[in-house]
Amino acid sequence: MTRVMNVAMIGGGFMGKAHAMAYASMPMFFWPAPAIPHRKIVVDVTDAAAEAARERFGFEEASSDWRAVVERPDIDVVDICTPNNVHAEIAIAAAKAGKHIICEKPLARTIEEARAMAQAVREAGVIHMVAFNYRRTPAVALAKRYIEEGRVGRILNFRGTYLQDWSADPDGPLSWRFQKRIAGSGTTGDIATHVVDLAHYLVGPIAEVNSMVHTYVKTRPIQQGGVDKLGASEKSATAERGEVDVDDEVISMLRFENGAVGSLEASRNAWGRNNFITFEIHGTEGSIHFNYERRDELQVMFRNDPADARGFRTIYTGPAHPYGEGLWPIPALGIGYSETKIVECRDFFAAIAQNKLPSPNFEDGLRTEYVADALLRSGETGHWERVEGAAGTERQWTRAQA
Amino acid sequence: MTRVMNVAMIGGGFMGKAHAMAYASMPMFFWPAPAIPHRKIVVDVTDAAAEAARERFGFEEASSDWRAVVERPDIDVVDICTPNNVHAEIAIAAAKAGKHIICEKPLARTIEEARAMAQAVREAGVIHMVAFNYRRTPAVALAKRYIEEGRVGRILNFRGTYLQDWSADPDGPLSWRFQKRIAGSGTTGDIATHVVDLAHYLVGPIAEVNSMVHTYVKTRPIQQGGVDKLGASEKSATAERGEVDVDDEVISMLRFENGAVGSLEASRNAWGRNNFITFEIHGTEGSIHFNYERRDELQVMFRNDPADARGFRTIYTGPAHPYGEGLWPIPALGIGYSETKIVECRDFFAAIAQNKLPSPNFEDGLRTEYVADALLRSGETGHWERVEGAAGTERQWTRAQA
Amino acid sequence: MTRVMNVAMIGGGFMGKAHAMAYASMPMFFWPAPAIPHRKIVVDVTDAAAEAARERFGFEEASSDWRAVVERPDIDVVDICTPNNVHAEIAIAAAKAGKHIICEKPLARTIEEARAMAQAVREAGVIHMVAFNYRRTPAVALAKRYIEEGRVGRILNFRGTYLQDWSADPDGPLSWRFQKRIAGSGTTGDIATHVVDLAHYLVGPIAEVNSMVHTYVKTRPIQQGGVDKLGASEKSATAERGEVDVDDEVISMLRFENGAVGSLEASRNAWGRNNFITFEIHGTEGSIHFNYERRDELQVMFRNDPADARGFRTIYTGPAHPYGEGLWPIPALGIGYSETKIVECRDFFAAIAQNKLPSPNFEDGLRTEYVADALLRSGETGHWERVEGAAGTERQWTRAQA
Amino acid sequence: MTRVMNVAMIGGGFMGKAHAMAYASMPMFFWPAPAIPHRKIVVDVTDAAAEAARERFGFEEASSDWRAVVERPDIDVVDICTPNNVHAEIAIAAAKAGKHIICEKPLARTIEEARAMAQAVREAGVIHMVAFNYRRTPAVALAKRYIEEGRVGRILNFRGTYLQDWSADPDGPLSWRFQKRIAGSGTTGDIATHVVDLAHYLVGPIAEVNSMVHTYVKTRPIQQGGVDKLGASEKSATAERGEVDVDDEVISMLRFENGAVGSLEASRNAWGRNNFITFEIHGTEGSIHFNYERRDELQVMFRNDPADARGFRTIYTGPAHPYGEGLWPIPALGIGYSETKIVECRDFFAAIAQNKLPSPNFEDGLRTEYVADALLRSGETGHWERVEGAAGTERQWTRAQA
Repeated sequence: MTRVMNVAMIGGGFMGKAHAMAYASMPMFFWPAPAIPHRKIVVDVTDAAAEAARERFGFEEASSDWRAVVERPDIDVVDICTPNNVHAEIAIAAAKAGKHIICEKPLARTIEEARAMAQAVREAGVIHMVAFNYRRTPAVALAKRYIEEGRVGRILNFRGTYLQDWSADPDGPLSWRFQKRIAGSGTTGDIATHVVDLAHYLVGPIAEVNSMVHTYVKTRPIQQGGVDKLGASEKSATAERGEVDVDDEVISMLRFENGAVGSLEASRNAWGRNNFITFEIHGTEGSIHFNYERRDELQVMFRNDPADARGFRTIYTGPAHPYGEGLWPIPALGIGYSETKIVECRDFFAAIAQNKLPSPNFEDGLRTEYVADALLRSGETGHWERVEGAAGTERQWTRAQA
Repeated sequence: MTRVMNVAMIGGGFMGKAHAMAYASMPMFFWPAPAIPHRKIVVDVTDAAAEAARERFGFEEASSDWRAVVERPDIDVVDICTPNNVHAEIAIAAAKAGKHIICEKPLARTIEEARAMAQAVREAGVIHMVAFNYRRTPAVALAKRYIEEGRVGRILNFRGTYLQDWSADPDGPLSWRFQKRIAGSGTTGDIATHVVDLAHYLVGPIAEVNSMVHTYVKTRPIQQGGVDKLGASEKSATAERGEVDVDDEVISMLRFENGAVGSLEASRNAWGRNNFITFEIHGTEGSIHFNYERRDELQVMFRNDPADARGFRTIYTGPAHPYGEGLWPIPALGIGYSETKIVECRDFFAAIAQNKLPSPNFEDGLRTEYVADALLRSGETGHWERVEGAAGTERQWTRAQA
Repeated sequence: MTRVMNVAMIGGGFMGKAHAMAYASMPMFFWPAPAIPHRKIVVDVTDAAAEAARERFGFEEASSDWRAVVERPDIDVVDICTPNNVHAEIAIAAAKAGKHIICEKPLARTIEEARAMAQAVREAGVIHMVAFNYRRTPAVALAKRYIEEGRVGRILNFRGTYLQDWSADPDGPLSWRFQKRIAGSGTTGDIATHVVDLAHYLVGPIAEVNSMVHTYVKTRPIQQGGVDKLGASEKSATAERGEVDVDDEVISMLRFENGAVGSLEASRNAWGRNNFITFEIHGTEGSIHFNYERRDELQVMFRNDPADARGFRTIYTGPAHPYGEGLWPIPALGIGYSETKIVECRDFFAAIAQNKLPSPNFEDGLRTEYVADALLRSGETGHWERVEGAAGTERQWTRAQA
Repeated sequence: MTRVMNVAMIGGGFMGKAHAMAYASMPMFFWPAPAIPHRKIVVDVTDAAAEAARERFGFEEASSDWRAVVERPDIDVVDICTPNNVHAEIAIAAAKAGKHIICEKPLARTIEEARAMAQAVREAGVIHMVAFNYRRTPAVALAKRYIEEGRVGRILNFRGTYLQDWSADPDGPLSWRFQKRIAGSGTTGDIATHVVDLAHYLVGPIAEVNSMVHTYVKTRPIQQGGVDKLGASEKSATAERGEVDVDDEVISMLRFENGAVGSLEASRNAWGRNNFITFEIHGTEGSIHFNYERRDELQVMFRNDPADARGFRTIYTGPAHPYGEGLWPIPALGIGYSETKIVECRDFFAAIAQNKLPSPNFEDGLRTEYVADALLRSGETGHWERVEGAAGTERQWTRAQA
């Protein structure tokens, strides 16, 4: 009998929508499901907002008191979809109450917070996960498979980007994402961490970074109404402006523990790039390229192909690829944001069912925070900065040893 | 107060999955929702199958008796997700019972069936829709907007394709899709009708066709188990084989009532093409190109752009485009099959709420059947064949009159 | 000792430029060269034009009297770069004078002319070639190699396009290309024949066609000055206009002698398409796609690739591919129009050196004219029209027989 | 009267081929030509090699004594197509003899050599140019136009790559390009300098770099025969191996004098990338993307496009774009390597005719060498390194000041 698990979702914004959809849909896709998530209760900042979220997202109950909710004995899972500033507090309380936790990314505003969160879940022995959903894209999981099976050889180089333009207009509102007090950091925490998570997943731990960090848009119109609508927000050239105290661009070189090197670029000022999460990996036996804007596809090149038929293959993911058994019956029917979140949901509940930590869990999220911290530090010092906890980097290896 | 409407879904396969996901998710995306679909009861061929579908897809009840279900007074909407052979019977019964109906495509196996279905819903005065979901892709709706606003001028030419390869292997199983008795036709009904629907939506009614229709794969292994799994099916080179009595390729020239011309190609033998629904439209003021495999994007070219900055634009759909208010807050987060079905669901319930027929409704579906019929006839005669009910084609117009 | 051969080039326009460049450059690329073309004499309509062409294109002499030139005993090769209306006359005279001939495409205005030209070269025993240069693109020759080696199996389907927009503006000048008296036909002869040549090269002889032929732009400003500048021409909305008596769009279905089928579309009204020569071929073992606008690349898919690594490969042509030994030392340095013409020149002189007819020769060109004629006939009758001289089409074969 | 200028070309390898083609072809394309280059004499290492080059490349004379040649009074132009180790010596001698000079890139092995070369041409008052041909691609010149006209606003960010794989195989031969004594450096000098040249051309002087420099392939088979054939070379897994003492990968962050920032990656280990020269530029008003492998195209996005029609445009260069008047009459006929070299040749002789230094001249080449030197230095120190002669970097500016 598949177990029904009660979910308390804290936060009813854009991320709440995505998670609620996944709770409703996951068992339809992955069947038999590892568990049946039940939308038990949703929490928002006011009773009215919570009630609206309840109706919209199909939860049984609503509340504006997350502290009470996370302690309710009938709750199995706490889902943190809030802005970054309350991640730590909620997660720690939920852990103490013995709840399994899925937390939106980035894990926290600071490494102190992240460290405390990791400690809390460790002590509580609950299952925990950070919602870096992009690695759940089937094409990304396929890249992982190729790498693990050695099909592109030893990795020399990783180049990742995350470019957006929804906030390139200096007249877009000063939402919480532009305020250090709430967000912790800007581009670094919000989107560069996705690239770091992909790098950790595909290549391994980052040991050192050397970065540039900038803030081009230094003021923005003060936001009317509290809801963060990203690219759908109203622009205003006349409203009173407040200070942006977080970064909007980070560029970095990377050294991995295993000797691979690479680079990372994340920007909110990249006109024409929407959700341009890309990576390119050069290995000794081939290369891989991915662009989330065309997320049904993975590009892969194998050097051992015949000389006259060698080139990047465009693989559309489907039943023959990771998660294919649960998604759609042919490739290119379509992987959207929904599908990535459904896969994430499946892996989270599978972890609970198997009582085995998924990845990225809070420890992984903490390591990502260490990298984010090193990125910000290096942006100030202008030097290579070690990632906290990183093992020594392998000495540069050569192709002769490959 | 948003009305809750009880849905009876007939059929619990791949399409049932997609529809169930949409019922659960639609109000989360489009809020306030036009109605709240309630997954009341699901019907499948056996009690066991129905019960499994109920649990998996989150319905309240299960049944193997669709006749009883469609007459239940507590049912508002009947959703037909079955193979084509029972579309007519169910739809006519549902109409007679006064239910609103959404029916998977193609509407029916034959024009006789389709005609009877259209008549039944006409007489019953219910709301009806055919699930040609691809026109619900935001990029396709954006193409429609450009055309309606005259931004590409008068349309000269439409070229559409639907190419697949999940059944290109002659050792894939003889599912119902390869049996005329159940499916009515092969490629023509199953996928070419999608292109016809897009052509009707974007350009207008097709008046005449001149086609070639082929069957390359004439036998297939008899299917073990009844479930159609498309590309995820097992292949077998040794199993006993049965006859394929439907087409697997259709190529046609098109003449539209408004004087535009075009072509259509649909094939199940196109290795490397997965769900390759494309169209290209040449107008007097610009051109449009779409490829569903990259469905977040629309390509558009405006001739009036400056001479040194003229070229196809790649538009990623988002908040500024059709359905953008309900989907994701920035472009390229990702339109998958799920999102197209959620939009379809929204438009269906909006039609019910407004008591106004949506498109494509059964009349549109019937016209598409007339085109399918003309395609099959022309494939036999080798001549231009008129589409039943089509008005006279405009005499060829010239650019001087544009 | 490599032989030096004296070339008389008739016509000093855009095509003259391309050919002169090839004469100068071919031995630099393909060395040892099959022969050294010597730019002996260039002919244009006036002495002044000829002298200008001589200086510009590096010829030794100039003349305005092609009749005298083609009879000169020191001339080895006659190169016909004129508008279509004098192809036949010049070619027949050159053949009678025993000269080897390369003639720009299409071979002639009518099948009568083309037949007479083919007969003349046949009787004269000279080497002859039609300058359908696009099949000399290395990526196209690679497609040919794949097909000949059976790597995509038996061909089911060929879909070819040639779309342009340089004349989509109705205010572009009425150059000779829009006048039947000079050009013979419009889009059909000028660009559709390129697609026909590619189809013949890659698939085999076309047996039957069923087409639509249109003229959308029925008048154009009468041209000032005689030079055809294609897209670089001045537009005028006020100049006096003359009639366009040739087609600007042709769409056709195709049946090949070997049982393959296909389609063809050529248009001068396709905004945003510049030199959009594409083909897609579906075979029993794979598929091929080519787009001349990205001519360094060939897309190929092999069905026998591993299930999780199957997709179109993007092959950049280079040393490992046809003509690679003579072109550039790595792929993607760049194949331009120049390179296609240099390859064409090489193959023509290699044919002379080996005294072996190249392809496409005048017989091939005549067959292409037969197809063009059938296209125009079918455009009038609305029926399938047989291509003159075509053998019977194989009965439709099936995959079971493949 | 267009002046005929005598060219002495030193070096008859792959680059000699490209230059000889350009000398023969340039006036055919750009007419009236700024000058008529006459292929007077070619020099190679032996008399036999020189004589072979003379015949192949259409020169009047041949020699193995470059010192004598550069002093001949009938020589107007010296063209240096040799390996890097003799650039300085030849250029300085040619300058002293008063010859105009075009020199292949990189200018020299070291900044000392480059400095001496720049001084020599400065003192001699001759015209000089470095053959960074990629900025002559029409699409790159179009990017320059957009930037100069302010159409993408102030530049925030430049990201450039040059990725190749012709030498990714460790069993490719140890040609001169892998020997410091001859080449000066590896990837840095050979290909990263192209990116630096593009960055200087499009954005402005680079002030500081912070890089990683690696050598993965540390030994290679000793080359049989002296000729560098790049990707067309024979591979050998068994031959005796020698040491590679130059870099094969460089990754760097960049700071420009004008406050823009960026990154650069060049690698010879990037399987699947052939001549992958790309740049992406984010400005305050738009973005530009270029990929040389698809060099007929430029991608540009203007933020001021209507909200529902905003996206990267794919511009195929043609008559409406830089150099369009001389190249082909419609876009996408094809820009190959030949065309870039023809344009380069035109600009060089135009500079001579106008007695006005072209760009990149030796001063520009020297600045590029300074950047290359800083890249190599930073690769050792792990710190930001200033580029010699660079002015102070502007303090970071903000979008509010834009």
